[in-house]
Amino acid sequence: MKHIAILGYGVVGGGITGVLDGNREAIRAAVGDDVNVKYILDLRDFPDSPYGDRVVRDASVIMNDPEVCLVAETMGGAHPAFELSMDALRAGKHVVTSNKEVVATFGDKLLACAAQNGVSYLFEASVGGGIPVIRPFLTSLAGERVSAVRGILNGTTNFILTKMKTEMRPFADVLREAQELGYSEKDPTADIDGIDAKRKIMILGALATGILADESEVYAETISKISPLDMDAAERAGAVIKLVATAEIEDGGVAFFVCPQMVKKTDLLASVDDVYNAVSVTCRVTGDVLFYGRGAGRWPTAGAVVADVVAALSGAASAERAPVFVKRSGTVKDFRDVSFSYYVRLSGVSAMDASEEFERYFDRVSVLDGSPAGKTELICSEATGRELEKLLSGRADVESVIRMG
Amino acid sequence: MKHIAILGYGVVGGGITGVLDGNREAIRAAVGDDVNVKYILDLRDFPDSPYGDRVVRDASVIMNDPEVCLVAETMGGAHPAFELSMDALRAGKHVVTSNKEVVATFGDKLLACAAQNGVSYLFEASVGGGIPVIRPFLTSLAGERVSAVRGILNGTTNFILTKMKTEMRPFADVLREAQELGYSEKDPTADIDGIDAKRKIMILGALATGILADESEVYAETISKISPLDMDAAERAGAVIKLVATAEIEDGGVAFFVCPQMVKKTDLLASVDDVYNAVSVTCRVTGDVLFYGRGAGRWPTAGAVVADVVAALSGAASAERAPVFVKRSGTVKDFRDVSFSYYVRLSGVSAMDASEEFERYFDRVSVLDGSPAGKTELICSEATGRELEKLLSGRADVESVIRMG
Repeated sequence: MKHIAILGYGVVGGGITGVLDGNREAIRAAVGDDVNVKYILDLRDFPDSPYGDRVVRDASVIMNDPEVCLVAETMGGAHPAFELSMDALRAGKHVVTSNKEVVATFGDKLLACAAQNGVSYLFEASVGGGIPVIRPFLTSLAGERVSAVRGILNGTTNFILTKMKTEMRPFADVLREAQELGYSEKDPTADIDGIDAKRKIMILGALATGILADESEVYAETISKISPLDMDAAERAGAVIKLVATAEIEDGGVAFFVCPQMVKKTDLLASVDDVYNAVSVTCRVTGDVLFYGRGAGRWPTAGAVVADVVAALSGAASAERAPVFVKRSGTVKDFRDVSFSYYVRLSGVSAMDASEEFERYFDRVSVLDGSPAGKTELICSEATGRELEKLLSGRADVESVIRMG
Repeated sequence: MKHIAILGYGVVGGGITGVLDGNREAIRAAVGDDVNVKYILDLRDFPDSPYGDRVVRDASVIMNDPEVCLVAETMGGAHPAFELSMDALRAGKHVVTSNKEVVATFGDKLLACAAQNGVSYLFEASVGGGIPVIRPFLTSLAGERVSAVRGILNGTTNFILTKMKTEMRPFADVLREAQELGYSEKDPTADIDGIDAKRKIMILGALATGILADESEVYAETISKISPLDMDAAERAGAVIKLVATAEIEDGGVAFFVCPQMVKKTDLLASVDDVYNAVSVTCRVTGDVLFYGRGAGRWPTAGAVVADVVAALSGAASAERAPVFVKRSGTVKDFRDVSFSYYVRLSGVSAMDASEEFERYFDRVSVLDGSPAGKTELICSEATGRELEKLLSGRADVESVIRMG
């Protein structure tokens, strides 16, 4: 019998006991032993749960119990998740987590502490919910050189953008629906402004490069400025607007960013709709590999946590190459130095005048057909953010600027 | 230093030494040691290769050398690949392979022999080329219950179907182009008639169920009968014709089959174009997970073989749960008992007469709009193959029948 503890018995934590109960036989076969939840750390009581008698309020009970060989941290937030995870690792317990904030912020320290203590720190569930992406990255793509990671990593914004497109409704309206459906938090900022996706691309970027960026080094742009006019323009450009998180890896440096982009319909990411997530990894030998699935939700996320529990308790994880994350300031490229093509919508200027003017700054400028009355739409390539800023500064006729993916 | 041998120095075998040389540092880091190709078994000479001096013609040199701890079998074909792999396993060497025929035919014996000798038999490269799918199946989805696997597993047929659709050209014409481009063998039967895809779904089905089917139990249907008229009809039905390989797993039994299907455009498999492959796995907890990438080609396939080399030599594979395949006749459902909806094209009969008649056999029949002159097209749901056979037998007016995915 292997004993584990769960820190935080919320949506995901509660899902873990559900998965452990529902798939007991398959899990026993994979681990080679029964898995027992000995403790649950939570401030609340759960009198109706069969696990109600496992609840403790004092973390030291868990840390001091040598029978507990693994801790599943599903508390969310950086603190006290970080401190408790460090305590568990120092006590020689494996730690598995679904908490992207703690991995993106303290992943370097947590992985180092795990290595020092000869245990595993696993975080498959922190990115892409139920999609197996972290482990394939570390195992199947071990020995590969990754040149880019691109992903649709936030289900809430993808749901909103999909609805806006198919029903041509404004952002605020669809956001309200997402909140009513429970897809979005009451305070939707972390989703909408790309903060959640930013943490996830920091984790994937660190897996690909070894460099754990500082949050301030990663650009994130909101989807709240996207309008039905933009959606319509994307359609005419043969594209779909998606919130894309990117890690670009070149010999010269790495760049991490999250922003709404017009993604060509021939790009598989354009077909990822609703709450689904996808991660595309560009490898030197293998080419493009894409992982797709449900990016959030109780069961997929809990399933991914349990997969990590199985990997840790079966010994599989300890045979895998553990990642090493390093914070090294100055290695991440400024987002304003990354080049893009852009969709630009202007009002009150003719297509001829606008394109003539923009051709002075861009190598290629084409006019998008079918613009609404009084609007001119251009596709311009290519310029860095700095160049674009200069060009657009002080212009009152610019309605919308969206990067092309 | 870890010594390995390569059996068969063709397209994939030659790619292995290329990947080992190109990614030497990353591989050393992952394995924890240098990897050296000590022998290459081939009947040919390779005087211009830096590996020319490693070539041997006598397999016993490899089998009897205790320094060789792993054999990469990239010969293709069932024999002598099977016998040599068994010899290597019995000699206590890990075996990794890209050879789907030998895995689909003798996977049960090879895995059992590996287990008896305490070594690994790994075959990531046998399905989906460079796409990590076998290992995620066994690790990330360990402890899951899989209810279906669907895949586009053959790049040649997917290339042909994609070209037929986008350029509205007949099958024979596009096949010729695929052969000229080197995408298809001179004898294209294994690709076109679904035999290659059949072997791959037998392997994926065995991973999901433990049952290794006999080739005779797996239905495979050719794409050679698909015409531009069918392509056009699919477009009007909001679908795309794909060669889909399926493993359906129910409590009552399993069914394995490969056939051209009209796949709805909202299904991600419909967006998998050209030589790309994709595998979709439906899991009880995690929901649908999809793996996508280049399904063939020297480098992706060699990359997958090397990933297995790394997994075996680092010890990661031995900590993973090794699959067990069992042949058990009578457990695989007859394809003719599987239910589908169908597209049916008839000539010389009015839409009204045809639908009236078909409504006697099907619960729902709808007429597809925009049919060419003199044709009637129906979408009929649902019936088993047996029921359909009875219905259509003896009719001379049936031009085309395609299953809906």
